[in-house]
Amino acid sequence: MLNFTFQNPCKIVFGKDEQKQVGKLVKEYSSHVLMVYGRNSIKTSGLYDQICDSLKAEGIEYVELPGVKGNPEMDLVYEGIDLCRKNGLDFVLAVGGGSVIDTSKAISVGVPYDGDVWDFYLRKCKPTKALPIGTVLTVVGAGSEMSCSNVVTKADEKLKRDFDNQIIIPRFSILNPELTYTVSSYQTACGSFDALTHVMERYFTQVEHTDVTDRLCEGLMKTIIAFTPLAQQNPDNYDYRAEIMWAATLAQNNLMSTGRDGDWACHKIEHELSGEFDIAHGEGLAMLFPTWIRYVYKSNPERIRQFGRRVFDIDLAGYDDDVACLKVAEALEDFEKKIGLKTDMSSLGIDEATARMLAERCCWNAPTKGKFRKLDPTDIAELLMQAAKVR
Amino acid sequence: MLNFTFQNPCKIVFGKDEQKQVGKLVKEYSSHVLMVYGRNSIKTSGLYDQICDSLKAEGIEYVELPGVKGNPEMDLVYEGIDLCRKNGLDFVLAVGGGSVIDTSKAISVGVPYDGDVWDFYLRKCKPTKALPIGTVLTVVGAGSEMSCSNVVTKADEKLKRDFDNQIIIPRFSILNPELTYTVSSYQTACGSFDALTHVMERYFTQVEHTDVTDRLCEGLMKTIIAFTPLAQQNPDNYDYRAEIMWAATLAQNNLMSTGRDGDWACHKIEHELSGEFDIAHGEGLAMLFPTWIRYVYKSNPERIRQFGRRVFDIDLAGYDDDVACLKVAEALEDFEKKIGLKTDMSSLGIDEATARMLAERCCWNAPTKGKFRKLDPTDIAELLMQAAKVR
Repeated sequence: MLNFTFQNPCKIVFGKDEQKQVGKLVKEYSSHVLMVYGRNSIKTSGLYDQICDSLKAEGIEYVELPGVKGNPEMDLVYEGIDLCRKNGLDFVLAVGGGSVIDTSKAISVGVPYDGDVWDFYLRKCKPTKALPIGTVLTVVGAGSEMSCSNVVTKADEKLKRDFDNQIIIPRFSILNPELTYTVSSYQTACGSFDALTHVMERYFTQVEHTDVTDRLCEGLMKTIIAFTPLAQQNPDNYDYRAEIMWAATLAQNNLMSTGRDGDWACHKIEHELSGEFDIAHGEGLAMLFPTWIRYVYKSNPERIRQFGRRVFDIDLAGYDDDVACLKVAEALEDFEKKIGLKTDMSSLGIDEATARMLAERCCWNAPTKGKFRKLDPTDIAELLMQAAKVR
Repeated sequence: MLNFTFQNPCKIVFGKDEQKQVGKLVKEYSSHVLMVYGRNSIKTSGLYDQICDSLKAEGIEYVELPGVKGNPEMDLVYEGIDLCRKNGLDFVLAVGGGSVIDTSKAISVGVPYDGDVWDFYLRKCKPTKALPIGTVLTVVGAGSEMSCSNVVTKADEKLKRDFDNQIIIPRFSILNPELTYTVSSYQTACGSFDALTHVMERYFTQVEHTDVTDRLCEGLMKTIIAFTPLAQQNPDNYDYRAEIMWAATLAQNNLMSTGRDGDWACHKIEHELSGEFDIAHGEGLAMLFPTWIRYVYKSNPERIRQFGRRVFDIDLAGYDDDVACLKVAEALEDFEKKIGLKTDMSSLGIDEATARMLAERCCWNAPTKGKFRKLDPTDIAELLMQAAKVR
């Protein structure tokens, strides 16, 4: 087990009707708020009115920034920074999923910074100040509601970039599973697979003696795998939605990282995919992860086997590593198919030149990506070409 | 799943040598500190000197309050409150295990309170202010280092009483497994069993649809059960000590309570036991818990079976509930024996009158204790008499 520091002060308010507390929760920090959201869904669901009523009841003034899309873009971040500065807003309330929250996080560090907020994503410097953030979560998966992470896209350059910093952890997040009933089956699959991957990225480590966090990771993964198909079949079942909602938050709040390091190669490679192509992050991960397992398993077959045994309950006794790890990759593919995700990138029509370009772009700030096995641009291009084949 | 609020801002600094950071961590809050510890063990181990050096290096003045014992007493709490007030100390640094930390928590709420701090334990009122606390943990089990709980004893009245409050969560806790190498095999067993019980109290619930936290609880319990005997056999094995140290902290930081309620009858009954008799809290729990399972299993046999199947890997298929739940109680007893704890209270020599007296005392503030099955004083006396028989 590695030495670690863990701290996550985010207040989670979980359950039915809890969105009605939003005014009181915001009021602890501010009376002048930027409210960030996506498109019309929160208006048709009635959530928008509930939020506005709750803010008004506490005398909180708010300016709205609607229009956040999946793979959220920097243009809207700059617009939000301007709105905060012009109107003296000192709190960002995100009402939506990961894209809305990540846009809010980018705004929160941009407002008190004199330079271009994109500097933080290019690793030119680290943010030292941020406006406080609160969230009302409506789409499960990204885990941004309790994380120190965020990722945004500069559309003109097709660059999707991220950074982590403790100061962007939300002060509070309201999680009401009812607010996710209208999330489509496909979006539910993408969100769950993203959450599952947040655990897998941490689970596949070369650090030894990580038993307690292994067990916790396995618990989250088993929960996501069991309840995602059930939630797809019963979209307005509170309990199924609740299980994946809380599991997805815990998947990304860094508790699962304690004492270990993670791999994150698939996440970094996927960011290049969804920067270049218009695909959902969760499905991009599904297209990559089984191929990643096949590509890297020789670096630590026992860890892949443990994942298969404990998470998918596969009996691998008697199989050599090559066969066993292939079975594990196939079990993951079977789950992906079950929830309606593509298991390969064949639909993207990537040729070798594109694969090489994406691989080079992925290694923009380091010679390799991933820690379970370090992948250089040649590896990443090869992995992409293997994932591009029909399975 | 129940609605819940979860927030735990404690900063965990975990790993080798991390106690040397204590001065820097304290300095964020204070330069005038009360340092609370137990008896001589931190001096013989060299920890005392390391702490003092680190505090001095940051220019922090400190006053010492040594002498905390197991089942810590209020006399020392009053002494600590006086020391803080007379010397203008505004931070309490606990160096020790649960007793030292709980003494520090009691002092922290007592200093800013005009009345008798014991009022909080008698539920006369709730604390609204507390001095900040930090801890350097040397004994694993109580989980007080990241919890909102504390328990102290008024020796003259043989009363052991507790309260929970968010304001007594430590600001930071330093967890270095090396500092626990000198904890004896018996104390290791007591601590681990206390931690295991913190999970079991939460696990045995009548709330339905608690799947994700069930899985997390099972992960912690499996870890504690696997690594406690290994740590006893290899007391200076870093990895074994690390697994139980982190598991025990997570057992009690309230994450395992999210979306569910707990039972806590055994804890409340045990507080009466160790208030009356000079026994370790962890062993008191071991004396009670298997009998509690036998006494309550009919209230929800499936939950007892799930515990047996998933935590102890017992194959219960084909057994009726009576036999299956008995097997589960026996599996818990086998674990207790394996780590050297008593599985019954026969050594205490309790007669029926004493059992009735303890049962009445246990229900001092409510007609029943426990939620898995509500136990009134008659039940508790009966349970104590059953636990008093030789097994």
